[in-house]
Amino acid sequence: MNGGLTYRDAGVDLEAARATKARLSELVRGTRTDAVSSDFGSFGGRFRATPGRELVASADGVGTKLKIAVMADRHDTVGADLVNHCVNDILVEGARPLIFMDYVACGVLNPDTVTSVVSGLAAACRANGCALLGGETAEMPDFYAPGEYDLAGFVVGEIAYPELARRELAPGDRLIGLASSGIHTNGYSFVRALFFGRLGLGAHDPFPGAEASVADILLRPHRSYLSILERSLEAGRVRGLAHITGGGIPGNVDRVIGGDLDAVVRSDSWPRPHEFDVIARESGADEAELFATFNMGVGMIAVVREADTGKVLEEIRGAGCEAFMCGELVAGGGKVHLESA
Amino acid sequence: MNGGLTYRDAGVDLEAARATKARLSELVRGTRTDAVSSDFGSFGGRFRATPGRELVASADGVGTKLKIAVMADRHDTVGADLVNHCVNDILVEGARPLIFMDYVACGVLNPDTVTSVVSGLAAACRANGCALLGGETAEMPDFYAPGEYDLAGFVVGEIAYPELARRELAPGDRLIGLASSGIHTNGYSFVRALFFGRLGLGAHDPFPGAEASVADILLRPHRSYLSILERSLEAGRVRGLAHITGGGIPGNVDRVIGGDLDAVVRSDSWPRPHEFDVIARESGADEAELFATFNMGVGMIAVVREADTGKVLEEIRGAGCEAFMCGELVAGGGKVHLESA
Repeated sequence: MNGGLTYRDAGVDLEAARATKARLSELVRGTRTDAVSSDFGSFGGRFRATPGRELVASADGVGTKLKIAVMADRHDTVGADLVNHCVNDILVEGARPLIFMDYVACGVLNPDTVTSVVSGLAAACRANGCALLGGETAEMPDFYAPGEYDLAGFVVGEIAYPELARRELAPGDRLIGLASSGIHTNGYSFVRALFFGRLGLGAHDPFPGAEASVADILLRPHRSYLSILERSLEAGRVRGLAHITGGGIPGNVDRVIGGDLDAVVRSDSWPRPHEFDVIARESGADEAELFATFNMGVGMIAVVREADTGKVLEEIRGAGCEAFMCGELVAGGGKVHLESA
Repeated sequence: MNGGLTYRDAGVDLEAARATKARLSELVRGTRTDAVSSDFGSFGGRFRATPGRELVASADGVGTKLKIAVMADRHDTVGADLVNHCVNDILVEGARPLIFMDYVACGVLNPDTVTSVVSGLAAACRANGCALLGGETAEMPDFYAPGEYDLAGFVVGEIAYPELARRELAPGDRLIGLASSGIHTNGYSFVRALFFGRLGLGAHDPFPGAEASVADILLRPHRSYLSILERSLEAGRVRGLAHITGGGIPGNVDRVIGGDLDAVVRSDSWPRPHEFDVIARESGADEAELFATFNMGVGMIAVVREADTGKVLEEIRGAGCEAFMCGELVAGGGKVHLESA
């Protein structure tokens, strides 16, 4: 700093920011859908919903799974985590996504990192048929440690399956568990304390009992259930959905069943994925703690009429996702019971 | 950690999070509007737009102004910064806000801090007539320094003033500058380097040449121009708006004028607020740098027909905001000229 203080002295490089913005605009344009009515670079992105349809919005972050992306220097998966998490959250309300916006904050902007993050966001938006309408890339010197960043997202969708929001559930309805693709985006503080703290592993070490690395297993993206459930939803065969996020099965199924039903979930009715076996064994945590923290292999639970279970299982599996009969609803008071033989 | 690893050992206190969530839900409920159709605690918040109206969404953060809030331990102003910034961003597209969602991320959740932040968000949402529909409060141990947090927001509005998006501007149209309420939310890395670095001041020291403290001046909330411009907008007297954010007047007025007009802005046509005089003097930065970094006292520029200028000035002042004739549009090529006598 010699005399005049400039923004660059203060740690913000507006030219680098502009160059990155140009690269990002290409990625964003590639997600354009018919719903979008503005071009990239407006103060706000314009879009249209189907007239008369109710809208649903949700905000989320990736959480400390980001730390693992930073440790492994692999930034193209966290975008799918964020988009798919948000898409699943509004899907349980019966909504299909229209637009997505992101917030990326870092200390000093690394163009390759930001471009990699946004490429992941854009790919996941395309896969879910929603437009990445815009977002904010914030350079906040002294705020984030070198190489680190935070990532948040926001989705707006419109109600396409209103029966899901009505939640007309009844005793005898069956619960179908849809396989998760891994740990998804919950429980990562626990996971980091266990693998990097207690077990002293590095991101590129082999995962215990597996060929893949710790990063490979821990960074597997959160799956979107939109296309997986699409056929059953279009046919009106799904009466309710619970996205298994923070709080696990007990903390999320209770949000869908209402006050006069209980859910009985048989926790041994699906094969427990290897990573959760390792977490259980190495942490020594009890089943209640594990199920309150992790999805334990089931990322979404669908409520269906008994007569529809066979067809729905077939449709989900036909879309490439494992699914399991994992319980039912009974008369009760809004409680979730985890049972095993 | 003794045997079983629990989520609390890993730094996440779910009970404290739940208690805070209950306090936040009250704040959020207080912002409910007719547009909202869901209750707090759903996976996604439901709302309705006026049928047929185009929607506008925008995402933003507060930037390193947050550092000053942390230094001063004053957290009830940054919510207004965020909401008002987002509301202004979509206002220039002709939209009134419907819903807002926040993302608050911290290392360890301090219930008082988060509640203070959200109370500021809720108050600003109420003032702008939009619902705080929900959001995400993320506890990310080892990610944020103790006491620090990040804050991002997303707004969705509907087009109420379509003439603003059409931008039918012409040579001879006048520019009216609306007074800012301070530094708003841009240039804070520069500000921090200057006041806390070069000048060695603390947040509670007197601001140079003022009675108020450094924190008092630097934390003054970003103003919303929605209610200030409402009468002129309803009367169709505003043809275009530029929100003066990052890039200052040159970097934002160019976004509204299009490719065949130039804007001539007389930079000495309004009284320069004291804080910008101090920044100019103490930093030694030249005028071009200052105007590319700060709003310099003008937070919004309205484009109006010459015949409407008197009425619009009167309406803005009647709504409690200073306003100044600060330039005009001329035939050109999309450039912004800053001129002074």
